Amino acid sequence: MDNDIVISSRIRLARNLKNYKFATKINQEEAYKIIDEVKKVIENIDFTSKLEFELHYLKDIPDIEQNILIEQHIISPQLAKNKDKSAFMISKDKNITIMLNEEDHIRLQVLNSGLKLEECLKTANEIDDILEENLDYAFDKDLGYVTSCPTNLGTGMRASAMLHLPALSVTNQLEKILLAISQIGVAVRGVYGEGTKSMGNLYQISNQGTLGAEEETLCGRIRQITMQIIEKESATRQHLLDNNRIYIENEIYRAYGILKNARIIDTQESMKLLSIIKMGIEMGILEGMDNKNIDKLMIKVQANNIQMMLNEGFTKKERNLKRAEILRNEI
Amino acid sequence: MDNDIVISSRIRLARNLKNYKFATKINQEEAYKIIDEVKKVIENIDFTSKLEFELHYLKDIPDIEQNILIEQHIISPQLAKNKDKSAFMISKDKNITIMLNEEDHIRLQVLNSGLKLEECLKTANEIDDILEENLDYAFDKDLGYVTSCPTNLGTGMRASAMLHLPALSVTNQLEKILLAISQIGVAVRGVYGEGTKSMGNLYQISNQGTLGAEEETLCGRIRQITMQIIEKESATRQHLLDNNRIYIENEIYRAYGILKNARIIDTQESMKLLSIIKMGIEMGILEGMDNKNIDKLMIKVQANNIQMMLNEGFTKKERNLKRAEILRNEI
Repeated sequence: MDNDIVISSRIRLARNLKNYKFATKINQEEAYKIIDEVKKVIENIDFTSKLEFELHYLKDIPDIEQNILIEQHIISPQLAKNKDKSAFMISKDKNITIMLNEEDHIRLQVLNSGLKLEECLKTANEIDDILEENLDYAFDKDLGYVTSCPTNLGTGMRASAMLHLPALSVTNQLEKILLAISQIGVAVRGVYGEGTKSMGNLYQISNQGTLGAEEETLCGRIRQITMQIIEKESATRQHLLDNNRIYIENEIYRAYGILKNARIIDTQESMKLLSIIKMGIEMGILEGMDNKNIDKLMIKVQANNIQMMLNEGFTKKERNLKRAEILRNEI
Repeated sequence: MDNDIVISSRIRLARNLKNYKFATKINQEEAYKIIDEVKKVIENIDFTSKLEFELHYLKDIPDIEQNILIEQHIISPQLAKNKDKSAFMISKDKNITIMLNEEDHIRLQVLNSGLKLEECLKTANEIDDILEENLDYAFDKDLGYVTSCPTNLGTGMRASAMLHLPALSVTNQLEKILLAISQIGVAVRGVYGEGTKSMGNLYQISNQGTLGAEEETLCGRIRQITMQIIEKESATRQHLLDNNRIYIENEIYRAYGILKNARIIDTQESMKLLSIIKMGIEMGILEGMDNKNIDKLMIKVQANNIQMMLNEGFTKKERNLKRAEILRNEI
């Protein structure tokens, strides 16, 4: 069940080049020089084919496609905001992205499904080591890696796990837990949606500080807290099955009935119902359905993904119709 | 569409026998004498076989079955309250009931599906004439038929139509219309549920006064108002289809999805969703479904009907489970 609850793990390293001003202060010419420097290093690495990288300049990507990349967590909103100066390199398997001229010159992120923070860190370190050998990183022997925002000083690392917590959510335990972990230096964010607002019971937890501890230590701390939350979510699911099976079945089948029949549905409701269905599959209540398909649908129902499928029609109403059609066909 | 909107028509005549105190004042012996008198008259009529009557004493019927008869509109709650003294005769086709020692000695009611007030009145008058020839009715030449409650004085007749008004309801026009007709001497009652609270968008409209007008006139007035409401409901449905088809489809299919999948459902929600499905069938949106079956389900989902099907278990929770099972199987 662990792998069901942890949707994905992610490591992000923030790095800057010594001989340039911070990304927020440079002009386009300087920005493209940085992109060129990184590109050359990456292109010269003798990767396996799945790690081959492709470079994309943000200025060449239509807004709608940028938004889809954001919804897919491939790039950050900040990168899209700097589109005159920014670019990203992405590996063929789409698990590694090197964002260039986001808040920092280099934002290297490695993604993996399930709880695989250490694996992500290992890959990130390998690429980071090669970059460091070939580029002049801004590094201070006392502070560590110098970053644009002081919260990233030190290791420049953020380790995060995306968790699916429907049982803790329906039993109203979530708020308390999330408050408790936020008090021990762990950040909790909703995935999609503004600020910390969660959609589909998806939550991202990550380290808040990056200073004064080794990468492995920070990473281990996030893994440990993640394990504790998994345990609580699992125990709550089991408790629901043992004591309130018919209530939880009712919720799950109603969610299924609505997704299978609605003609109009917005993102927020889709995510909520998909989350319940996902739990239903994982609990063994809904049979013959593919959990991975639900994960994909959670991205597919996002506004820009839907918009991309519409040849014409650009209103919220038309997206709500198209979204309902996709869900009816694919659930 | 008229026949879809008017579920049923009903005529009720209130009569009392001259030589007895009112039903509320008599003892059991007197009550049973009245029952005997009426029984003898009815048994001697040479009816067609479908009009043959059966007599049932309320004291012989278990409470749960009495409640089911109430939910089926065959007897009134008042008749069940007088169970030591009351009885009813019911025709084989169940369209005619003669309640004995309800509020009045005789409450003759004739029911028909669709808008058939005149037909109901004709049948009621035929039976009433025979009763009047053979019994001593309490009748005052100025006031008309003498009844226990003064609101029934005069004709002693109530003409009512049960209407299904989902489109007027979802477009929030209903309250205004019902208020307007209540101001011209027409009563509006919810069907099932306490007081005037409606379930499943079902409303019963009937004449408030019974004095100072011929039966045919009162009946014609109710028919006329019913026709006006039908016209408004039909026009609103057409307007919804023309202008908001996808919204109304969304409501209808969601209702279907929930009824087809829920594991727990209460009476109120069942009625609301069945009402929407009924409209969907009548609008031609849901195909291959039998409207008459939905009408039957609207009675079947009532609490006592559900209770009767349960061999064991007498809690609201168990009824909500059973109700959901029936709806899943029969929709």
